[in-house]
Amino acid sequence: MPKIVDHEERRQEIGEAAWRVIRRDGLEAVSVRSVAREAGTSMGSLRHYFTSQSELLAFSMRMVVERVTARLGTLDLSGDPRRHIQAVIAELLPLDNERRAESEVWLSFTIRALVDPALRELSDEVYDSLNGLMRQLIEALVNHNLAASDLDIELEAERLQALMDGLVVHAVSRPQRVSDGWMSEVVSHHLDDLLDSSRTRL
Amino acid sequence: MPKIVDHEERRQEIGEAAWRVIRRDGLEAVSVRSVAREAGTSMGSLRHYFTSQSELLAFSMRMVVERVTARLGTLDLSGDPRRHIQAVIAELLPLDNERRAESEVWLSFTIRALVDPALRELSDEVYDSLNGLMRQLIEALVNHNLAASDLDIELEAERLQALMDGLVVHAVSRPQRVSDGWMSEVVSHHLDDLLDSSRTRL
Repeated sequence: MPKIVDHEERRQEIGEAAWRVIRRDGLEAVSVRSVAREAGTSMGSLRHYFTSQSELLAFSMRMVVERVTARLGTLDLSGDPRRHIQAVIAELLPLDNERRAESEVWLSFTIRALVDPALRELSDEVYDSLNGLMRQLIEALVNHNLAASDLDIELEAERLQALMDGLVVHAVSRPQRVSDGWMSEVVSHHLDDLLDSSRTRL
Repeated sequence: MPKIVDHEERRQEIGEAAWRVIRRDGLEAVSVRSVAREAGTSMGSLRHYFTSQSELLAFSMRMVVERVTARLGTLDLSGDPRRHIQAVIAELLPLDNERRAESEVWLSFTIRALVDPALRELSDEVYDSLNGLMRQLIEALVNHNLAASDLDIELEAERLQALMDGLVVHAVSRPQRVSDGWMSEVVSHHLDDLLDSSRTRL
């Protein structure tokens, strides 16, 4: 009987192997050779899926986007918008080992894209789609009368995104100072500020 | 007559050459060989100052710290604390080519320190000294009765530092979206929020 190979599962395994190389040795250590070794497969077999470092890096980043998007898709959006926004942000912060891996891959990828034109478009896409998500969250607060109607949505979206991304930088680079609980507290305080004070006790 | 060599000037030139390599090719491209070539000197001559990649990277980062510290030292702190805090933050954001170079070196260095234990201590020091600076700024606002006396100083320091570092990530990776003016506007709005509303028109 021929061996049944689930190609999508195989790609995910290779992507996870690339993540491990990035987290242990840095993004520049990713190569068809190093990822094949990490995944316990041959270079020939890996080349069936990826032929260059840039392809491996782009796939590693897309895997971050796909997993975050999948988790966001399972959130229950029917309840209180304040709880909803906090749940969305929690999926984007390095609050457990899986999200920490995603954060480190995202950050390494973003910095690498500064000097690798092949990664630039995807890096821009990631910023833009997160910015769009932030706007939606802020708009929802305004539409539910939880935030002031004269809120500058574009500005608040950038402020929230910058706060989150800065917390990600701190949590992965200085975890002794910026713990999971501390990150959540800072975000929660920021949301309190965003909400109309007369409505915060709803 | 023997050639007079200013050693400190020479080190600065080498550091600037390392910055150019980091910004053009990424931090992993830094080596005694590549920096010697970039500085237009011999490897033997460069080894007089630096013998390894880690030493070159640490010096490049220390040069960022020294230059920012020198600029902060020239600020006039006698006036309005609100203007003072804004001037300090402006020195830390990539608002011109020099500060953009510093931001890119800082960011690359911080990410590299995740996988290079030799850089970890310096990376932690940089976070801690910036965090101390943020606390001082927030405390000054409280002491001058410009901010509420029940402000959580530790939390506001982390929030301001995260906002700034997130803006740095965005400005270097997505400059088409996060311009100099946009960064300044977001920071200014954040400071407005921090200040006691009754005092904002001082």
